[in-house]
Amino acid sequence: MAGEFALIDKYFARPTPSAVLGPGDDCALLQPSPGKQLAVTTDMLVAGTHFLPDTDAGNLGWKTLAVNLSDLAAMGATPRWVTLAGALPAADEAWIEKFADGLFACAREYGVDVVGGDTTRGPLNLCLTAIGEIEPGRALRRDGARAGDQVWVSGRPGLASLGLAQLQGRIALPDPWPRLCIAALEKPRPRVALGLALPGVASAAIDVSDGLLADLGHICARSGCAAVVRLEQLPYLPKGESYDADLRRLAMECLLTGGDDYELCFTAPGTASQEIIRIAARLELPLWNIGEMLAGPAGEVTVLDPDGQPVSFSQHGYEHFEQAAQP
Amino acid sequence: MAGEFALIDKYFARPTPSAVLGPGDDCALLQPSPGKQLAVTTDMLVAGTHFLPDTDAGNLGWKTLAVNLSDLAAMGATPRWVTLAGALPAADEAWIEKFADGLFACAREYGVDVVGGDTTRGPLNLCLTAIGEIEPGRALRRDGARAGDQVWVSGRPGLASLGLAQLQGRIALPDPWPRLCIAALEKPRPRVALGLALPGVASAAIDVSDGLLADLGHICARSGCAAVVRLEQLPYLPKGESYDADLRRLAMECLLTGGDDYELCFTAPGTASQEIIRIAARLELPLWNIGEMLAGPAGEVTVLDPDGQPVSFSQHGYEHFEQAAQP
Repeated sequence: MAGEFALIDKYFARPTPSAVLGPGDDCALLQPSPGKQLAVTTDMLVAGTHFLPDTDAGNLGWKTLAVNLSDLAAMGATPRWVTLAGALPAADEAWIEKFADGLFACAREYGVDVVGGDTTRGPLNLCLTAIGEIEPGRALRRDGARAGDQVWVSGRPGLASLGLAQLQGRIALPDPWPRLCIAALEKPRPRVALGLALPGVASAAIDVSDGLLADLGHICARSGCAAVVRLEQLPYLPKGESYDADLRRLAMECLLTGGDDYELCFTAPGTASQEIIRIAARLELPLWNIGEMLAGPAGEVTVLDPDGQPVSFSQHGYEHFEQAAQP
Repeated sequence: MAGEFALIDKYFARPTPSAVLGPGDDCALLQPSPGKQLAVTTDMLVAGTHFLPDTDAGNLGWKTLAVNLSDLAAMGATPRWVTLAGALPAADEAWIEKFADGLFACAREYGVDVVGGDTTRGPLNLCLTAIGEIEPGRALRRDGARAGDQVWVSGRPGLASLGLAQLQGRIALPDPWPRLCIAALEKPRPRVALGLALPGVASAAIDVSDGLLADLGHICARSGCAAVVRLEQLPYLPKGESYDADLRRLAMECLLTGGDDYELCFTAPGTASQEIIRIAARLELPLWNIGEMLAGPAGEVTVLDPDGQPVSFSQHGYEHFEQAAQP
């Protein structure tokens, strides 16, 4: 790419106090903390698949990092370092500057250094690898849930899906939800502080990036358990005159099956519930007990309505779910 | 992507004996060796930019890993772990199987584990991040060269460019060069063993992925030195009737300015030359002393002809170079 090195130096080669050697050599050099393990995750964001092509570059820079920090949070790891590779269709300096500003705003917020990268020409594609640290044996794995554990979720999953529907003109949310939902979509806040509070408390965790039910299903599959989710325990939109029944149903569907949220879903024994409530208060982050793990068929997640009847749903379409949920 | 998880499990979730936790969770978990530093590098390969769209998937899998291992080699690090993210236009299982076979063949050859990844739909794009380990203070940085150091290069840079020209029908190389040059292009062999032999011997190193003169220029810029390269010390094609003057000139140009080679260019004090010759013999890899570092303008690389006259050249075109070199 013409001027590649100059652009990289100008916007991405910022001080990296946590690295032995930052950008500009064949590799970055990092000194891990003695005795810690590394948690490593990589995510690729593609224009048209993961974000709208006209997404604000600053928000995109934030989100590219945030979704990886969310994976570190789901593991209970302290974020340390990231590398970024990007393919750009053109060397649009204004776009690159905004993207870098968003990326480094997120990096500052969560205390990570961007220690290396690669820039090339191609269809817009951003790939970030994040490295965190955690004490051996403390990581929140997906395979640690046990039958009888409670299932928890943070915040309000589904907002990102609602924000996307709003942006695409498919729905018209009442205030203040457009702003909140679009912020959840465009500038998600990874639950790093929650992830750091959960080792020793939670038995398993995952971030809700594929949708709550799908991701809880991943915990179930890896832990050899089933799970039940109770509709009446879910964090619905607050009651109010301005929400009609259709919107309420859509919000529930987004909550259960919408992707691109970065809340944490975790499991914990019932004895931990007081500690979890204290964590929620300390972090000023709602944590919802939405169901429990069962010794059922591995990977099976059942949703129960307020009468205790199973509700069918499909991850791949709202119709089936609507028909089943509203008999 | 439909069936994404099944495909990942089928082709990429192989045993990872060097990891605490491999693919399938939010993060991989790795235990670094006590006291070692990490060397981390990331490279993105885009169809049409870095490889021909009809490139053999197996060779592409090999090369995607090999180019990152080359960066670790240029740092003198021992390869340990990699993560892979890929965007694919379609879930073509036969292609994925061949790609994975090539990738894991390279991983086995160089002793690394593929510990995590991400798969998504999009224009073909492959991004790999590699993590190696090295003793603190032993890394081969670009900024360690000193005036008076000798400049060395391994193998035969330029073969990949000749291979590309052959594949594109722009030249017709005599045997056995088509096979050798296309292999250098499609299945490069990162100089990992050489990289591991050089700490304590070389003062700076880089891999020749942007072209020998450009990459030597990076060492010069970071080390605050100039360099001179002597034409008569370069590893030309062997003399023989079958090479005409045009081909010989093209080979020299590719040697100096062709990219996509993964040889190592390094500098070392003259006192190290006997040790370097021993390393070449032990590794059965030719190492060529092609010039020396000077206390000249930082970043300036001068090519001298056999009469000691400077030769002008351009990285961006052969015409200028040919005119100047063949007065």
